[in-house]
Amino acid sequence: MSSETDSDSDESTSKCGAKTDGGEAANSSSGSKCGASKSDSSSSSSKSKCGASKSDSSSSGSNCGSSSKSESVEEKVEATVDDFDAEPGRLMAVGLGPGHPEGMTQRARDVLLEADHIVGYTTYIDLLPDEIIEGADDIYDTPMCGEVSRTEESVDRTLAGNDVAIVGSGDPNVYALAGLALEILESKGATASMVDFEVIPGVPAAQSCGARLGAPLVNDTVSISLSDHLVPMPEIESRLHAVAKESFTITIYNPWSRKRRDNFEKCCEILLTHRDPDTPVGIVHAAGREDEQVMITELDELEELGESEIIDMTTTIVVGNEETYVWDDRMVTPRGYETKYDY
Amino acid sequence: MSSETDSDSDESTSKCGAKTDGGEAANSSSGSKCGASKSDSSSSSSKSKCGASKSDSSSSGSNCGSSSKSESVEEKVEATVDDFDAEPGRLMAVGLGPGHPEGMTQRARDVLLEADHIVGYTTYIDLLPDEIIEGADDIYDTPMCGEVSRTEESVDRTLAGNDVAIVGSGDPNVYALAGLALEILESKGATASMVDFEVIPGVPAAQSCGARLGAPLVNDTVSISLSDHLVPMPEIESRLHAVAKESFTITIYNPWSRKRRDNFEKCCEILLTHRDPDTPVGIVHAAGREDEQVMITELDELEELGESEIIDMTTTIVVGNEETYVWDDRMVTPRGYETKYDY
Repeated sequence: MSSETDSDSDESTSKCGAKTDGGEAANSSSGSKCGASKSDSSSSSSKSKCGASKSDSSSSGSNCGSSSKSESVEEKVEATVDDFDAEPGRLMAVGLGPGHPEGMTQRARDVLLEADHIVGYTTYIDLLPDEIIEGADDIYDTPMCGEVSRTEESVDRTLAGNDVAIVGSGDPNVYALAGLALEILESKGATASMVDFEVIPGVPAAQSCGARLGAPLVNDTVSISLSDHLVPMPEIESRLHAVAKESFTITIYNPWSRKRRDNFEKCCEILLTHRDPDTPVGIVHAAGREDEQVMITELDELEELGESEIIDMTTTIVVGNEETYVWDDRMVTPRGYETKYDY
Repeated sequence: MSSETDSDSDESTSKCGAKTDGGEAANSSSGSKCGASKSDSSSSSSKSKCGASKSDSSSSGSNCGSSSKSESVEEKVEATVDDFDAEPGRLMAVGLGPGHPEGMTQRARDVLLEADHIVGYTTYIDLLPDEIIEGADDIYDTPMCGEVSRTEESVDRTLAGNDVAIVGSGDPNVYALAGLALEILESKGATASMVDFEVIPGVPAAQSCGARLGAPLVNDTVSISLSDHLVPMPEIESRLHAVAKESFTITIYNPWSRKRRDNFEKCCEILLTHRDPDTPVGIVHAAGREDEQVMITELDELEELGESEIIDMTTTIVVGNEETYVWDDRMVTPRGYETKYDY
């Protein structure tokens, strides 16, 4: 459910700040087996298949909780393709699907079993089956909010000759790291072809949560993230208006955090401008995890639930369209068969 | 890629009509082991765990190619929950993901291995691994366009006491049968709880195709089907206008058929009204199949490709937003990290 959460790095400092210090420190120290440090950026550590990385530990500072570029300690990608002597390995962005290992595809499992190094957010690494963890030469995990440095680490390790899998829950294309991996490859003067870059898709949160709720998403649908860390809130609002007017079901990612409760309130207000107060809304918290919660409610009840435990950054919300109804504790959005068939 | 195609029953009669005759005939004859026929709708065949079904074979006639309710031979769901004596089995709507078995989740595989009966469109059944086919008591497959009768068959077999998996590629919530299964359960006077109804999600076509293209979908995104069999074309056009104005990436399902090439042309025209002619567009034909083709082009080239082999009902099209670019044969839609981080 939260590949998306992973990539959403504007989370509250109380959640990320402290932990990230440790994570980033590990990144810039030599605590990790490979790729974490070298004192001279012109030398490569290809003998040990270790990635080149920056000697300046301040460049890998956490950006968690920062809200503007000028305030943040920028992460610089300093090692380039020229710093590596090795034949590059493969780089695979792997979607794990929902939290539990059974939600992973066979292809994802195969790729993780083949990978030399596996890189990811600690929470997702912890969910991997033992056989995958034990089969890897190295696991590199950092807490939430280190996605840029973690992705750079993956690229460096790949350029140093390792086959590297960078993992996240859900799908690598859904608010996740497939794009960042390509952008960092480009910034280093490498190419996607050079590392045989591959995206291994996974079941996105919208689908995992839709399944828990019944059949809310069988017609045209949109996904919108309420995080304004990387997209300005006026754009998000404009998108919400545009789709709420039309008969899309709407899946809301990253709905709430203490730092930006206003976004959630604004979202509820916009939806109510265009949709009936009794529009069915499905809420799935931590799908596939031990603390999973599922609730079906109505649109005019949504805003006040923002303050309850069921809605946080691991929650996905599905807003029905004007035809969505609730039957036997399931949300159903008709595909339209009833207009053509008699059953 | 075409769980969606499966559920999209307005396809050309040349594709569906002939085949469906055979498929539907199998459904209304006693050719299938279970659930296909009984002469008296008040008796149940629970001893052999066979589903009740209608004695009137005309009620399961194909609706393929029909374009309005009045013209179609309506399918009637005649057997109700009262016609079955057995303790109901379980009903599972299973998404297979992309065409190849490696794209299936472990959970989908486990559920299929446990199922007594597996029901689906012939093309998808043919893609299942041998161990699953051999492990089932019965496989019931019909050609394209029989989705209503096929789904009813699944429900009947479940009510007759079998554990039934109804399968499709992609995800059961994406233009697929999860909703229809619930609607048919309701129409029979059954409930979802009674059959322990469960949706097992799969990797949708948007994600499988996005992965082939690189990272085109990492920001807010919409899915729209161009089939006007179940949704009127003016509504589809209105949705296209609404989202093309905003910075969504757009995944187009069911883009083209000989019978409705106008929809595709209209779609291209609407997109060009709001987006630059050089907007990157990714086209994936038959993702994960032997005849897979991947192409990245520009928006103003799209319309003429409608007449080429790469675009048919097994094709999924991803239209970039205003920030999407092509690099090293990959489509990349920035998530926005570049506005906050320096790499």
